[in-house]
Amino acid sequence: MSEHFDAIKWHGQKLLLLDQRALPFQIAYLEFENAMDVAKAITDMVVRGAPAIGITAAYAVVLAARARYRESSNAWREAITADIDVLRKARPTAVNLAWALDRMATVVAAISPGIDPEAELLQEAQRIHQEDIDANKRMGELGADVLARDPVLIEPGRKHRIITHCNAGALATGGFGTALGVIRAAHARHMVEHVYADETRPWLQGARLTAWELQQDDIPVSLLIDSAAAQLMQREGITWVIVGSDRITANGDVVNKIGTYQLAVSAKYHGVKVMVAAPTSTVDMDLLSGEQVVIENRDTREVTHVADRAIATPGVEVLNPAFDVTPAQLVDAIVTEKGVVEKPDRKKMAAMMKNAG
Amino acid sequence: MSEHFDAIKWHGQKLLLLDQRALPFQIAYLEFENAMDVAKAITDMVVRGAPAIGITAAYAVVLAARARYRESSNAWREAITADIDVLRKARPTAVNLAWALDRMATVVAAISPGIDPEAELLQEAQRIHQEDIDANKRMGELGADVLARDPVLIEPGRKHRIITHCNAGALATGGFGTALGVIRAAHARHMVEHVYADETRPWLQGARLTAWELQQDDIPVSLLIDSAAAQLMQREGITWVIVGSDRITANGDVVNKIGTYQLAVSAKYHGVKVMVAAPTSTVDMDLLSGEQVVIENRDTREVTHVADRAIATPGVEVLNPAFDVTPAQLVDAIVTEKGVVEKPDRKKMAAMMKNAG
Repeated sequence: MSEHFDAIKWHGQKLLLLDQRALPFQIAYLEFENAMDVAKAITDMVVRGAPAIGITAAYAVVLAARARYRESSNAWREAITADIDVLRKARPTAVNLAWALDRMATVVAAISPGIDPEAELLQEAQRIHQEDIDANKRMGELGADVLARDPVLIEPGRKHRIITHCNAGALATGGFGTALGVIRAAHARHMVEHVYADETRPWLQGARLTAWELQQDDIPVSLLIDSAAAQLMQREGITWVIVGSDRITANGDVVNKIGTYQLAVSAKYHGVKVMVAAPTSTVDMDLLSGEQVVIENRDTREVTHVADRAIATPGVEVLNPAFDVTPAQLVDAIVTEKGVVEKPDRKKMAAMMKNAG
Repeated sequence: MSEHFDAIKWHGQKLLLLDQRALPFQIAYLEFENAMDVAKAITDMVVRGAPAIGITAAYAVVLAARARYRESSNAWREAITADIDVLRKARPTAVNLAWALDRMATVVAAISPGIDPEAELLQEAQRIHQEDIDANKRMGELGADVLARDPVLIEPGRKHRIITHCNAGALATGGFGTALGVIRAAHARHMVEHVYADETRPWLQGARLTAWELQQDDIPVSLLIDSAAAQLMQREGITWVIVGSDRITANGDVVNKIGTYQLAVSAKYHGVKVMVAAPTSTVDMDLLSGEQVVIENRDTREVTHVADRAIATPGVEVLNPAFDVTPAQLVDAIVTEKGVVEKPDRKKMAAMMKNAG
């Protein structure tokens, strides 16, 4: 999968983004040479998924540097600050965006004035990209280890029946995926019986992206409406909910796609475990808890229309929060590339991040 | 509302059904003179909602009797049995369908051979229809009484913030509505601050029908995706979830639109109360518990397409259960026209139904 359709490519001095708004019905890459166009593409969800947004923003800084250096080989470092600020605001919730821009800004600050910055910044962006892929593969193995240790597997022939929400796959990351990375690794070890993908209204990441990724990998998947998950837990012996995250706070609260919290509440009620897979770039140790996270409210048209066709009563007031907060006490394991935090709290999260260096 | 667009009308010796598949974008009545066409309309959800299905089927028996009597004024009573059987199978979950057909069959059995049955059967169908409207109005007041007794209202100025799922309104009944009947009655008594309508995938009854009904009654309503309800409970001080039902079993288990169970689980977790409003025609004392109810699985195209446009990965396996079962222990009050059962169990349900007898 990730070899065939990378969400993000750097090619011929341009940034290419696979247009995720049209997937899987159209497979089209959009080309970018201007950082502000990339910021708009992030806002418009041409690319989505916290790690993928961070990587994309890093490449956008390369484009910004090229343009600013052409304008003035001496003043480009000052000028690029405004571009980085615009990129930072392209979407408010995912912390990976700020994290990647901070890394790029550090490199910017270290380049001597008068030196063409493009090569060095491109190297850093590509490093961020490659590190994310490596992190996903590591998380996949660590998450699969957690699934392997689950006592439910003691029963002969028993395998995991997993619900996932949104898309935390290759398309949401540099490649391979966070939650889907764990599912891929677990499937390779023959531990997965079936994956149930929430369709994930309003943007239908599950129906369009997750189902598509798993189908291509021949991992057995069924699609369901988001509100059917509890009944599945009640009747079908689900063992784990596995999701990604857009921001994890210092105490282990998990900000993720709207619906994750409702799923975690149902999981708790049914004794189903909850795993969150995310790289440490998603962890925001500066925020004490999820209550401090700014939740993005998106255009209500995402709810009222599907492909320009109205599906709701005209003029009705609509709420469209893009994310929700799942408190740490509903999470059984947070899996990062640097380790697994079971039953997360502030102390365990700090220890894991210290380990992360 | 109910005066303007009745879901079901008998007019000029024909049955008229407001086509709910196209609402609120098109307001169109379909005319029926043939009972088998009505059975198909029930299957296809031209009309939906357990009470409305029952009333519709009753009128269909009138049409069937007219046709069978024309065929043979002596053998019509035998011939109509097959029609009633087809109607009975039009949708499997709502018990009101069987209940209304049983009432009509009793009248059929009492009519002397050779007598034109139409007038008498029409009278019974209209009685079923009118009784449903009366039951809704009674339930509205009884449900509003429950809301009025809720201690949260002790706080000065505090009103109810209610989540509803699917459409249990005038459109789902003979008129006025079950869950929306309670909300209408409570609103008339100035107890409702805001109603939050789940959009209710896949058929979008909330987005299309509930939002439309409440908008016309000037009851403040916001639309949200189904998976956002838990966050609303976490953050917005929701006091009650109020829904209808397609079948209530002898122990108080509630079969209702898929998603109701997930909502009830979230309500339990947040200390939000759950009210189910349904006429006694929805109560099936012959079934011990919800586990015995046949859950209808509908065409997967309801999930994969919106108005003939694909919204999911082609070829993906899809689960599309139309209903789920909410166990009695998650229900705070069942409101029927004959009384309120708080914290329902087998004994209390039996006492209420006896009262109903």
